[in-house]
Amino acid sequence: MSRCHRTFHTVLMFGILLLFVFTTIAVFTYNDSDFWKTASPILSTKPSPYDNSPLCNCQNTEPANKYVSVDELEDFRKRRAEEYRQHQIRMGKQNDVLLLAPANTPLQYPIKGFRVSPLKKTLIPGLALQTQNRKLYKVSLRVHKGVLSVMDIQGGEHVDGQNEQTLTISSSSLHQLNDLLSRVTYTSTVYHIKTEDLGLFSFENYKVTFPIEIRRLSVPVLFDPGKDINSQVTILVKAFLRYKELNVLIRSIRQFYPNIKIIIADDSHDPEKVVGDNIQHYIMPPAQGWFAGRNLAVSQVTTKYFLWVDDDFVFLNETRIESFVKIMEAVPELDVVGGDVGGNQFLFKLDYEEGNREEGGCITRVMGSHAPLPGFDGCYFADGVVNYFMGRTDAVRRVGFDPFLKRVAHTEFFIDGLGDLLVVTCKGLRIGHQERHSTNIYNQYRYPPQSDSQQKMRHHYFKNHLKCIKY
Amino acid sequence: MSRCHRTFHTVLMFGILLLFVFTTIAVFTYNDSDFWKTASPILSTKPSPYDNSPLCNCQNTEPANKYVSVDELEDFRKRRAEEYRQHQIRMGKQNDVLLLAPANTPLQYPIKGFRVSPLKKTLIPGLALQTQNRKLYKVSLRVHKGVLSVMDIQGGEHVDGQNEQTLTISSSSLHQLNDLLSRVTYTSTVYHIKTEDLGLFSFENYKVTFPIEIRRLSVPVLFDPGKDINSQVTILVKAFLRYKELNVLIRSIRQFYPNIKIIIADDSHDPEKVVGDNIQHYIMPPAQGWFAGRNLAVSQVTTKYFLWVDDDFVFLNETRIESFVKIMEAVPELDVVGGDVGGNQFLFKLDYEEGNREEGGCITRVMGSHAPLPGFDGCYFADGVVNYFMGRTDAVRRVGFDPFLKRVAHTEFFIDGLGDLLVVTCKGLRIGHQERHSTNIYNQYRYPPQSDSQQKMRHHYFKNHLKCIKY
Repeated sequence: MSRCHRTFHTVLMFGILLLFVFTTIAVFTYNDSDFWKTASPILSTKPSPYDNSPLCNCQNTEPANKYVSVDELEDFRKRRAEEYRQHQIRMGKQNDVLLLAPANTPLQYPIKGFRVSPLKKTLIPGLALQTQNRKLYKVSLRVHKGVLSVMDIQGGEHVDGQNEQTLTISSSSLHQLNDLLSRVTYTSTVYHIKTEDLGLFSFENYKVTFPIEIRRLSVPVLFDPGKDINSQVTILVKAFLRYKELNVLIRSIRQFYPNIKIIIADDSHDPEKVVGDNIQHYIMPPAQGWFAGRNLAVSQVTTKYFLWVDDDFVFLNETRIESFVKIMEAVPELDVVGGDVGGNQFLFKLDYEEGNREEGGCITRVMGSHAPLPGFDGCYFADGVVNYFMGRTDAVRRVGFDPFLKRVAHTEFFIDGLGDLLVVTCKGLRIGHQERHSTNIYNQYRYPPQSDSQQKMRHHYFKNHLKCIKY
Repeated sequence: MSRCHRTFHTVLMFGILLLFVFTTIAVFTYNDSDFWKTASPILSTKPSPYDNSPLCNCQNTEPANKYVSVDELEDFRKRRAEEYRQHQIRMGKQNDVLLLAPANTPLQYPIKGFRVSPLKKTLIPGLALQTQNRKLYKVSLRVHKGVLSVMDIQGGEHVDGQNEQTLTISSSSLHQLNDLLSRVTYTSTVYHIKTEDLGLFSFENYKVTFPIEIRRLSVPVLFDPGKDINSQVTILVKAFLRYKELNVLIRSIRQFYPNIKIIIADDSHDPEKVVGDNIQHYIMPPAQGWFAGRNLAVSQVTTKYFLWVDDDFVFLNETRIESFVKIMEAVPELDVVGGDVGGNQFLFKLDYEEGNREEGGCITRVMGSHAPLPGFDGCYFADGVVNYFMGRTDAVRRVGFDPFLKRVAHTEFFIDGLGDLLVVTCKGLRIGHQERHSTNIYNQYRYPPQSDSQQKMRHHYFKNHLKCIKY
């Protein structure tokens, strides 16, 4: 092969390489284009990428909106649409855009882990140009929620747009250009504690986009676990009328845990005194309900963990609070560990599809678990567990028990916690269930009329932006 | 210039280009290297990048640990270090690593917005190779918390490592290779609801790393704002002994808002009945304290917003709850809007440095604001405000009022909320303050002994992982 062929061949090869570069940039610029429309993080109304999510359906279930009367349905829908719009903005869904790194660009840039504090000047790490053979090297950077600048500019360094949204840097020396790039800073100008900007970095026809995370640092919130079970765990009970059962429960607790703190949330009509060391009895207005009581009790906990028990449970010889703590301490990411009540673990999964913006999502409760918890025989990941569980106080508080739900409610807590709470259930963490001998008055409340569950469905249709729920 | 010169020149140019490529990859691989140590998301103990944070200091303050007695200090420190370690794991700090996109690689890949559900097979978007002139094109992909596969493999397509952590794809046709790359899926194998994996994508000596977000979808939690102020806002009060003032407050509320719900958390020793329509009076065990009461009240709210008032405030002609709502509805990202109490806005900022792992952070309270709220004259972003504010129920619940803090406490809520709550304060949202004529008993509690504030400092030293606090 002659020299001239070799020349031709090399040049051709290089040409084709460039061709590919431009194609990629075209594709990429397209992907990226609509991003520059993003408005201020505060008033942004950019619709979320989920707007085009497919419809979802839970077979053989009545749509949730069946529980809203026809004459108020339209108004109800409007209010829900507006609350959902606000929710998407709060969740930063307008930043959920796919970004690609194009091939064959001479630009180096940060793609992850670059965080800035709001309004604070911060160096942008890793910016560089890696090419050759230009008389003049010229790059530009552009951002939207802040301004750019180069620190400590010396004479002879060419920078345009200091403290503006678009910065242009040029030099006849690649080395000097990269030195300047290593001193580029970003300062957000719109105050926000959790949002994102995008940096557009370009050279000739090459363009790349990188994320800039704008975040105010949080202060850790830790619980001092102290040295024994009493400083680690509080026992929580919701009481209503059944004082006989409640006192059996308390006696059984004291038999094994004489000093552990017990918090009782009581919404009985004529509250009886519940006495004993380290028992905190809270009197609620009558019949505030089940989840209001749970939320009250959790709000008063000062220990790292709490143990939820119903008022008609009973501690057995094998009931060991320490076993829950051991698992949670070994796996700090766990938020809820469920036990078993007289052999029943009631573990379930929640299949959830977001659905589209207008109709809302679909949720189906399915009995079963996701996967075993590595290293703990008999423990399985699930989305929900039985009424006997240990919770990480701060994590459960963040989800909370919706006080709107007065009577039958349990799964609803785990629906609200989906994606927030890491839940497992373990075999052999046993507590007993007292024999039922509840009164008529109690049953009136325990087994509410149809109207109640219709109210509940209506509530979920709005609150969880659902189209249907299947239990 | 002769042809032979041109050949030489082009080849040289190309050579130098490659030289740059390899340098970058070297740098990049170095940045990236320690990442492959990441253990299972569940049991990961990889220290956080903040371990090397510089020491911080708040001048002229006594270190928080001064409030822990010498003989228990070591034990106290050990417990705090362990809780902090768990906290870093829970916050996913082990994923806080800076990733760079190297220049001049022929690989295209996603750098942002690629989310997968745990254990669910998901296409990896945007993978491509853009080069030329190879007899055989061969790329490989590697992940750590999941497995890879190519969908619908046909005869004649060369894929090794289906459903394994490392996948290798080869073809003599670039077009076929890219077709195969467009069908690559990722399936996480360790169940986790919020964690991250990294994909290592390589071709010849080119290596890039891209983030894979593993996240369980959350269900929205919305509040139905209804149609009037009574369905949007609940008024919250913490009562203790001062029933005279409390009743003045309630009468003043009823004068302007006859039907709005009022929730009262009362930890008086001998609680008096507080009666009236739509007043919910909660009786706590005696002297549970200020923040326990606040947390109880917030836990019972069923409206989208609540208005916090002290028991000795009084509604004036100019007291308009609607003004708070208007601002929060216009700016959905706001969590707290502060007003003014007899002309006092008490707005402050919190300067916080994380400090290092052993010593902890430094926090200083500084009077003043961050920046104006665009579009709202007289409103300014701050980190904390006066005792008269409207809160977004779900957001404030997520932070909560630490029930450990019994007496003097206010700033502590905003410290816990730093980075979570977007706070503004606005001029002219006025409420009145009743004249003080509090009893001796009240003052005993209101102005606690020195020992109390020492307990408090000790608490913060542990809880917020602090080295010093400066008010």
